[in-house]
Amino acid sequence: MNALTPMPADIATPEALRASLAETAAAVESAIDSLLIRPTGAEAILFDAMRYASLGGGKRLRGYLAVQVAALFGADRNAALRTAASVEMLHAYSLVHDDLPSMDDDDLRRGQPSTHRKFDEATAILAGDALQTSAFEILAAPATHPDATIRANLVLALAQASGANGMVGGQVIDMQGEGKSLGLDQVRRLHALKTGALLRYAAISGAILGNASPEDTARIAAYGRDLGTAFQIADDVLDATASAEELGKTAGKDLAAGKSTYVSLLGIEGATREAKRLCQEACAHLEAFGPSAAHLKALALFVVERRN
Amino acid sequence: MNALTPMPADIATPEALRASLAETAAAVESAIDSLLIRPTGAEAILFDAMRYASLGGGKRLRGYLAVQVAALFGADRNAALRTAASVEMLHAYSLVHDDLPSMDDDDLRRGQPSTHRKFDEATAILAGDALQTSAFEILAAPATHPDATIRANLVLALAQASGANGMVGGQVIDMQGEGKSLGLDQVRRLHALKTGALLRYAAISGAILGNASPEDTARIAAYGRDLGTAFQIADDVLDATASAEELGKTAGKDLAAGKSTYVSLLGIEGATREAKRLCQEACAHLEAFGPSAAHLKALALFVVERRN
Repeated sequence: MNALTPMPADIATPEALRASLAETAAAVESAIDSLLIRPTGAEAILFDAMRYASLGGGKRLRGYLAVQVAALFGADRNAALRTAASVEMLHAYSLVHDDLPSMDDDDLRRGQPSTHRKFDEATAILAGDALQTSAFEILAAPATHPDATIRANLVLALAQASGANGMVGGQVIDMQGEGKSLGLDQVRRLHALKTGALLRYAAISGAILGNASPEDTARIAAYGRDLGTAFQIADDVLDATASAEELGKTAGKDLAAGKSTYVSLLGIEGATREAKRLCQEACAHLEAFGPSAAHLKALALFVVERRN
Repeated sequence: MNALTPMPADIATPEALRASLAETAAAVESAIDSLLIRPTGAEAILFDAMRYASLGGGKRLRGYLAVQVAALFGADRNAALRTAASVEMLHAYSLVHDDLPSMDDDDLRRGQPSTHRKFDEATAILAGDALQTSAFEILAAPATHPDATIRANLVLALAQASGANGMVGGQVIDMQGEGKSLGLDQVRRLHALKTGALLRYAAISGAILGNASPEDTARIAAYGRDLGTAFQIADDVLDATASAEELGKTAGKDLAAGKSTYVSLLGIEGATREAKRLCQEACAHLEAFGPSAAHLKALALFVVERRN
């Protein structure tokens, strides 16, 4: 962020955010590890693939959102970690299926062979399928929360965010848009579904766990929405400017696929400016929470300024 | 069933069962139709594929189990139909993914092009993904039942039946077993997971909806388990004896894939005898319910004697 942009009040330092992100990522990793116990039968290979796809990496942004928002509302830490593990498994399933030969046909994910390259295509499809199922199984289990209304609300919110009217719908709009020229509103809608809905859900899941008031939930939803859009714009900028080595995945994919992006519509400078504006908006929605939201505000800045 | 096998008491006639199956199938079809409303955006093609995969056919055995067991315990009819639609959408997702080129590579399903042949592979994968999500979304929605405990229990039971420790796990065991010689216990476990778990869930879902006692739920679970095994044995017999025209899908697949089946292990006659024995067992679990379970008993007979 340049010197002319005012810093939001009560924001955590980059160092404090980094430490908090690393601590939470390790706790989420451990939660996923303990939720995916490898059996001894012939189906063990499925669990190997599920673990390969969901463990050992990533920024765990979605898990971090769930955990931080849950903490903001005083929710139980174990409940938050299970919810975080669930949304990360849902996200992992989407990456496994996105990378498949008939979809993005990507051999690389986080600098490692994608799941269908490490295993095979059939195993990758089934591992993605089962990761989705596991995400809902975890949320519905009494171990996540004693109140069944909260569990059912989590399942419903995740399903709405990730299904045909959310993430998967966005993926289809993205495929349909290849080689076509989309307007800014169409690109916004595409990303609001494809990546925004799950990030927004991750934030809201913490509010559901913490029994937040409707007003506070609306604040968190608005924060999650703006953060999600800022994240996607930053992603488009990175795809256009960073190397595959920095990204840990193929760079320049959007251009190669003839996709309309925030960069193709606004230019790199215009897109960067819009991402920063949304970061400010996201933080503004959190003002009511004071210093308790210091890390969530720093996160909004982080998603805009990250290099991978 | 031959003349020496005693008929279970209080069993519906084949004609009465046929009428009841047809009536329920139409109601489930209508429920799915109203739950998958096609939007106007670029994602409409996804809904076309989801509707293609889940509407217009099939015996709706799983939906019928849910509806009939729900009726046995006096559950609300609308709740039962939504639950039936949900399990049929979950089943449809599994068929779409099973038919994919990297899995069974099947061009035909119910006598029509399989979803990836009618659309394309990417759309079929995503339609399957979104059908799974929809199944959980429907169960978690307050419109299905006012009691959140019942909704959360339905989600949990469906996830356990269909995920890595259920249906998908069974599919992986099936793939791993191709070209290998499996023993009867291994074949039993494979099918208990691959097809049995979802049929058993379908029956149990009606007991969950109707707040059945633990004893009655155990009876229904035992019925569902034996019916599921009988169904699978009959499927193996049909695969070995029926034509593609009768089946509406490729016949002789198991032999071609070098799979161990009930038929390869027990012979056609032995397998048929075992299916009939299990049908009797399934009916015996329902004795406590008297004539109210007449259709469920007839269904056990039907799954063994069907020709497709």
